[in-house]
Amino acid sequence: MRTRRPETSATVIDHILDRLSALGVRHLFGMPGDYNLKVLDRVVAHPRVDWVGTTNELGAAYAADGYGRVNGFGALLTTFGVGELNAINGVAGSYAERVPVLHIAIGPTTTTELAGSAVHHTMGDGDFDRFARAHRQVVCADAVLRPEDALFEVDRVVTACLRESRPGYLRLPRDVALGPAPPLPALKPPDLTVTHPGSLDNFRAAARARLAESDEVAVLADFLVDRFEARSELAALLAAGPLPHATTLAGKTVVDEQAPGFLGLYAGAMSKADVRATIDRADPLIMAGVLLTDQATGKFTHEFDPGKAIDLGPTAARVNGVDFPGVPLAAALTTLTSLIKERPPAPTPRPGGSSTANLSTAVTKSAAALRRRICGRWTPLTQAYLWKAVGEAVRSDHTVYADSGTALLGVAEQRFPDGARFISQPLWSSIGYCVPALLGAQLAEPSRRGLLLIGDGAAQLTAPELGVIGCHRLNPIVVLVNNDGYTVERITHGIRAVYNDVVSWDWPKVPSALGVPHPLVLSARRPAELDKALARAVTTTDRLVLIEVFLPKDDVPPAFHRMTANRPDRAKWVP
Amino acid sequence: MRTRRPETSATVIDHILDRLSALGVRHLFGMPGDYNLKVLDRVVAHPRVDWVGTTNELGAAYAADGYGRVNGFGALLTTFGVGELNAINGVAGSYAERVPVLHIAIGPTTTTELAGSAVHHTMGDGDFDRFARAHRQVVCADAVLRPEDALFEVDRVVTACLRESRPGYLRLPRDVALGPAPPLPALKPPDLTVTHPGSLDNFRAAARARLAESDEVAVLADFLVDRFEARSELAALLAAGPLPHATTLAGKTVVDEQAPGFLGLYAGAMSKADVRATIDRADPLIMAGVLLTDQATGKFTHEFDPGKAIDLGPTAARVNGVDFPGVPLAAALTTLTSLIKERPPAPTPRPGGSSTANLSTAVTKSAAALRRRICGRWTPLTQAYLWKAVGEAVRSDHTVYADSGTALLGVAEQRFPDGARFISQPLWSSIGYCVPALLGAQLAEPSRRGLLLIGDGAAQLTAPELGVIGCHRLNPIVVLVNNDGYTVERITHGIRAVYNDVVSWDWPKVPSALGVPHPLVLSARRPAELDKALARAVTTTDRLVLIEVFLPKDDVPPAFHRMTANRPDRAKWVP
Repeated sequence: MRTRRPETSATVIDHILDRLSALGVRHLFGMPGDYNLKVLDRVVAHPRVDWVGTTNELGAAYAADGYGRVNGFGALLTTFGVGELNAINGVAGSYAERVPVLHIAIGPTTTTELAGSAVHHTMGDGDFDRFARAHRQVVCADAVLRPEDALFEVDRVVTACLRESRPGYLRLPRDVALGPAPPLPALKPPDLTVTHPGSLDNFRAAARARLAESDEVAVLADFLVDRFEARSELAALLAAGPLPHATTLAGKTVVDEQAPGFLGLYAGAMSKADVRATIDRADPLIMAGVLLTDQATGKFTHEFDPGKAIDLGPTAARVNGVDFPGVPLAAALTTLTSLIKERPPAPTPRPGGSSTANLSTAVTKSAAALRRRICGRWTPLTQAYLWKAVGEAVRSDHTVYADSGTALLGVAEQRFPDGARFISQPLWSSIGYCVPALLGAQLAEPSRRGLLLIGDGAAQLTAPELGVIGCHRLNPIVVLVNNDGYTVERITHGIRAVYNDVVSWDWPKVPSALGVPHPLVLSARRPAELDKALARAVTTTDRLVLIEVFLPKDDVPPAFHRMTANRPDRAKWVP
Repeated sequence: MRTRRPETSATVIDHILDRLSALGVRHLFGMPGDYNLKVLDRVVAHPRVDWVGTTNELGAAYAADGYGRVNGFGALLTTFGVGELNAINGVAGSYAERVPVLHIAIGPTTTTELAGSAVHHTMGDGDFDRFARAHRQVVCADAVLRPEDALFEVDRVVTACLRESRPGYLRLPRDVALGPAPPLPALKPPDLTVTHPGSLDNFRAAARARLAESDEVAVLADFLVDRFEARSELAALLAAGPLPHATTLAGKTVVDEQAPGFLGLYAGAMSKADVRATIDRADPLIMAGVLLTDQATGKFTHEFDPGKAIDLGPTAARVNGVDFPGVPLAAALTTLTSLIKERPPAPTPRPGGSSTANLSTAVTKSAAALRRRICGRWTPLTQAYLWKAVGEAVRSDHTVYADSGTALLGVAEQRFPDGARFISQPLWSSIGYCVPALLGAQLAEPSRRGLLLIGDGAAQLTAPELGVIGCHRLNPIVVLVNNDGYTVERITHGIRAVYNDVVSWDWPKVPSALGVPHPLVLSARRPAELDKALARAVTTTDRLVLIEVFLPKDDVPPAFHRMTANRPDRAKWVP
């Protein structure tokens, strides 16, 4: 029998928790399992890290991802085999979406491993490394910890997560987790601003020459600006012009959407005509932290030539197809700002905040009245009306979570007040992500209210985590789009196919059935009902509010119709 | 653009469906995703395979596993990346528990792959094989299909699944799935009865010598008897003695529990005294399809010596530590039957069906009355009372599903009427498994009613699949043990630890909230209420019945107490 270490001695798990805490992590998500219980004693005893149990490890992984997005680092702790594999899809999402998250899986003791015992949560064949090997496919660094170098391996994996802004994986045999950890100096996080001076000079010269060729400059900003912490440098560049600019789906809210020059959402043929024209014809286009995914480009219907762009990646820049390594995103943006300032002042671009923009207020009565006059107060709701109304309800202290599907494409076009944040998962696009992501992100920033937009099909994957959200006294507004199934799939293929149907849930009963205390449940079938429900939800801040919104099963946001009109050959959202 | 193939031409996916259908598969579980929609058209068009959509791919994997257990083969179909990774824990469970299941993941087209496009559900880096590599850790065979050898690869993987009784994985780019499939001859399933005659002769001689040493023969039967289809050969051996015999947790119901000589559940120090004595002191012990896992042996507290046993594996036997390859389980059992018959007749062992056994009836009034007299009609319920009452409610046309935790250890000791079946997952032990497993297994055998036993913590992982169960008009009885969290973990460690708490659900509301039509919801806090609820549930066969049973959070089945009494050093259920 192992003797239990005195509570005061630092263990390897304490060391990991300290490292996490030093990175700003105050919440650890996960679930108990018999291999990790004693380790969880150390978690609940830790002075600066709180344990947040979820209903399924998938929820823990999504929550850690949401947490990592707003907090800079997230973490989850699971049990061996069953627990860690439940979480792996969420961890993979963090890899695709570049969120630094540490997945800590606690396994059987070293003795059990060495004996090759056929213990539960194994395949019974003595191979204890299968799940680490599976995780290796979806993380940037992984380790199975052994006493002799456990602490160094922790730091290696955590450092890789920070450098790459991606998840890492650690498996700890329980005895290793509870084994002694001598004090180590504080982790020195990797310096992501390290710049190669010669390469930066070369980049400056190339960019200056490229900018001199034309003054039809525009900027497309994407999510890597957020992940590599270059928001303020981007804002400075945009203001220096001022330069017309747009964001991708994944990049929404990396800029102030009320600022002059903000055009709106760019997504190739899905974009509004003016956004599309400005970005596709920019000369040069400055691509700030852009990944040319299908969703960023309206299924590769972009007409700009990335080879002629000034393309700023996380750690390298590219001009006219020539690479400049050692030029981090923020440094490149600052360099471009100085170059833009060298130019003669350009005429001020038309201000943002067009008629569709709200004025950083809640639903304005006049805007709602106008919309209803156009749409008819008692006509059935449409996606077009819904997302406009939701967009107008967004406040500067809201974080909007849009799950993949019509919710994401519908709300992404709405202009948010400055300060509002947006969380979605367009590259990984795992439906159901946003319920637990809200749990994580709202715990990280409790002062920001969550506004969760999700379809009925997507919500069914992770709905049980609503109870955890309620139990932590979080107060999100959940706009549940009930349109009888997977509408974005119906539009893609199989408009009436049975495989796009879902079981009809009695949504008003769901929050309280799942343990949400005193939820406010509202519903809307007509524009007037929606406006009223949103107004009430925004002012009811002491509890979770669910608004069930009924929509026809084949209605989609306007962006889909633009895609059809502009590029009928690629109208379907399938690559 | 690809031209759509006429509906009448066979495609690769049709070929796969035909192969599955030939193996008796009539239901394919899964979820739509935009890479698989057109493939699902072929599924819904298939004349002999029905599509069963679940709420999360994890549910599809568990359902396919449950289906495979009773049907001999199961299958699920998911979308690339997100869908297949949601399912991987269930697939891994099929590996551990030896269930043949085919996981079909449909990915982007070959063109997209070759272009390395940053499409959604990828990491954006052009590596499309990550998820196949992750699956390789948890399947017995895998392939990414290409047109030139797709059909042969299908047959290779399916054959491996049959031979090993384990899951396989296929990824199909969508164009390959919808590409042409020339007719092939029927699949020749691997012959698992192939025997090496010389090795069998040697085994017979060694076993005869071993049996001559002593006549304290007993048999321990485990789940591989089920997976390698040797039930009738085992029954013949047991009757030939008749021989005293016990089953493991995983092996429950591989024998007729009312037959003479059946001792009950064997689990090392957790066993009842007479079972333990007979099995631990057997000379020789015949191990029929036994895997010596922690749960089979009461955490390795078995006292028999496997090295002195006659140990029959799926394809090889072992006597006194000497291996006899090429001796399949069924052939070995038949050989032992003839050897036992050579011996002089033994006295008939004491019959099974002791006072705790039921008589293939529903709850008998007198037994219930007796239990209540002992326990007190209005005292609070205990685990001991609950599982006895549940055991007595089991009918011969029931399949009992016991989720890992107190439900499994509590009910496993109850003697079932002949014909009743038992499904659990003791080696993989992934909580929440049984909800979707019931969906799968009850669809495979609709004439058998499901009796699902599950704790409140476990049920929260997969509860949304209850709606799918209801929507398919299945009529299980769900005994939901509400004891405020993970009781089996509390007993293991952390009796009052917050990490063993769960969110309190309002369980009576849950089935209808999740779309179960007209559920009958009952509850029980006292013995009399439980007896009444079980009696009503057994006779209410036209709908899903939920019985919420309230138990103290630290009460456990008697087996746990025996473990503590017998081996206090290993009393906790943690290796």
